[in-house]
Amino acid sequence: MASPAESGFPAAPPHSQYEAAIPMRNSPEYRQDPLSGSWVILARARAERPTEFVAQPVRRRLEHCPFCAGNERFTPRAVATYPAAADSQADNHRWQVRVIPNKFPAVIESAPDIPDCGAAADRLAPLPGYGVHEVIVESREHTSSFSELSAEQARWSLLAYRDRLRCLANDSRLAYALLFKNCRGGGGATLEHTHSQIVGTSLTPAVVQRELQAAAEFHDRHRDCIFCRMVRSELDQAVRLVASTARFVAFCPFASRFPYEVWMLPREHAARYEDASLGDLDELSALLQLVLRSLEKNFSQVPYNYWIHTSPFDSAPFDYYHWHIELIPRITSQAGFEFGTGCFMNPVAPEDAASTIRVTGI
Amino acid sequence: MASPAESGFPAAPPHSQYEAAIPMRNSPEYRQDPLSGSWVILARARAERPTEFVAQPVRRRLEHCPFCAGNERFTPRAVATYPAAADSQADNHRWQVRVIPNKFPAVIESAPDIPDCGAAADRLAPLPGYGVHEVIVESREHTSSFSELSAEQARWSLLAYRDRLRCLANDSRLAYALLFKNCRGGGGATLEHTHSQIVGTSLTPAVVQRELQAAAEFHDRHRDCIFCRMVRSELDQAVRLVASTARFVAFCPFASRFPYEVWMLPREHAARYEDASLGDLDELSALLQLVLRSLEKNFSQVPYNYWIHTSPFDSAPFDYYHWHIELIPRITSQAGFEFGTGCFMNPVAPEDAASTIRVTGI
Repeated sequence: MASPAESGFPAAPPHSQYEAAIPMRNSPEYRQDPLSGSWVILARARAERPTEFVAQPVRRRLEHCPFCAGNERFTPRAVATYPAAADSQADNHRWQVRVIPNKFPAVIESAPDIPDCGAAADRLAPLPGYGVHEVIVESREHTSSFSELSAEQARWSLLAYRDRLRCLANDSRLAYALLFKNCRGGGGATLEHTHSQIVGTSLTPAVVQRELQAAAEFHDRHRDCIFCRMVRSELDQAVRLVASTARFVAFCPFASRFPYEVWMLPREHAARYEDASLGDLDELSALLQLVLRSLEKNFSQVPYNYWIHTSPFDSAPFDYYHWHIELIPRITSQAGFEFGTGCFMNPVAPEDAASTIRVTGI
Repeated sequence: MASPAESGFPAAPPHSQYEAAIPMRNSPEYRQDPLSGSWVILARARAERPTEFVAQPVRRRLEHCPFCAGNERFTPRAVATYPAAADSQADNHRWQVRVIPNKFPAVIESAPDIPDCGAAADRLAPLPGYGVHEVIVESREHTSSFSELSAEQARWSLLAYRDRLRCLANDSRLAYALLFKNCRGGGGATLEHTHSQIVGTSLTPAVVQRELQAAAEFHDRHRDCIFCRMVRSELDQAVRLVASTARFVAFCPFASRFPYEVWMLPREHAARYEDASLGDLDELSALLQLVLRSLEKNFSQVPYNYWIHTSPFDSAPFDYYHWHIELIPRITSQAGFEFGTGCFMNPVAPEDAASTIRVTGI
């Protein structure tokens, strides 16, 4: 991602040039703020989404839920099902996990080029919103949290995450894909039925860029992985530890932004989630469900988000990086201070949080 | 702010060292995430706040509202009132705007030092949460939005912002202060009565740091202010313009993160809000009210935040910086994608947003 300095704000361009840069159609764009260097996805099609949660926060709409088994006709055709159909081209009606294109995508595969109006080098030139946006439906039944899935469904879900990441990694136009989950209305979900999303973008996100940079710098200095060091520290101190298994560790990070924020990392160094073995996914899906159940035992029906940070799709090796899951319960809200500073206020020390939600005797 | 590379993650420290670094008391701390470089304020006292909005989203509690005139006994003693009392030490009971210490401060003036346990140089060393956290009550009456204030009250409010910033700038332990407003429950307000807050911190926030860096780099390259250039561009193109007055311009920024986001900048270059004249504040308060009324006409009772970005309190001159107000209506929610990437999805193009809320004939 270009630093804010790499190109200048355009010098009072002629009208025509600017007007050409303002697309009047409905296709998505990436736009970069010249001050923060951050990218925004202008996703006009998202404005047409249904808003189940806004109008009806808890009502379950089994009959019309597009994600329930039997209602497949309400969604686009599946791009993958788990277990797969005998004919891999077909939509397996006995699916446990079903991957479909997002009906209201933030980015699209057919984003037309934005006419080159000579402004491409300046910071006000939008980029076409090329990308892939899929939904991973994690259950045949109308369950509302990942914690309620059977162990088998949870495993299929984590396998689907891996397979979709592997698949998108082969698209040379994509730089990255984020797998994330929005659970419950307060977690930003618009549909209740348990699902995750994957958004592949032609840019590597700023948050991942910063992690990569910190990990690279730490590796240059210490010949060690910053995440491996963190795993050892947290296991050693144990004050922020939430749970640990043979292959994974879960803890509340030292600078938790959110009360009861939990990170889950493989103990063994691994740069890519896509390389996780079936054994890894078995253990991780069980750990994730245990941590979520502990959170929900303490905070009934808590909205939450989680996402996977893995290496970009670049051919460059990111040996210094270490994939992980970040999980944030949505108990606090973000407001003027957080948006104006980039600094979060957290009323619960991670040491206290870990002591509350700690899972023992796994 | 130190880059993530400037100090390493500690090398498996002995237990005692870490335990010393985990304060068991109730005082706030700053903690830096070694991966993002971002700071978090661990503000345990905030957990004790009342949550009027969570339980009772619209109920007006006039009798017990601590901010209503006549209920001053429910709050700490004022640190300033506008107009001031004849005896400037006294709390003027005829106040129009009243500044009080926050009863549940995120940061405190008496934050004790955290014992130096030899970990000060590493990234897991928390800093004492020194700072100032005040509330600016903007009306004697129980109004819920800045737009409902009389022109006179609005002017007193902007004057109070300026005076409190001037006052905090004299505290050598503070690096910065953010003036911000959370309006309505969806905007993060816990009390309905119109108020703003000011948080002075011993660190300059990451978001402001990035703006300063972009402005400095642009200035080095173009011998011009990036914000002045933006003002000229937006006036010239006019497609994202919301309103303009003799001294100020309001527009939806090119890379708006939020639908109907509006920035307000002085047309003349000025690094510090604290230097604004009374004439400036007159005009700005009128503009701010007009923009808010236009937003509220389109989106009834819309929750919003705004904040002032001004220069840090450092003695260094920030001649290349240009103060401004950022205003965000809280129509969309932030979820897994936004937190996992740092990239916002905005379903409304700023050109369309500006055309909807444009204020003409000022």
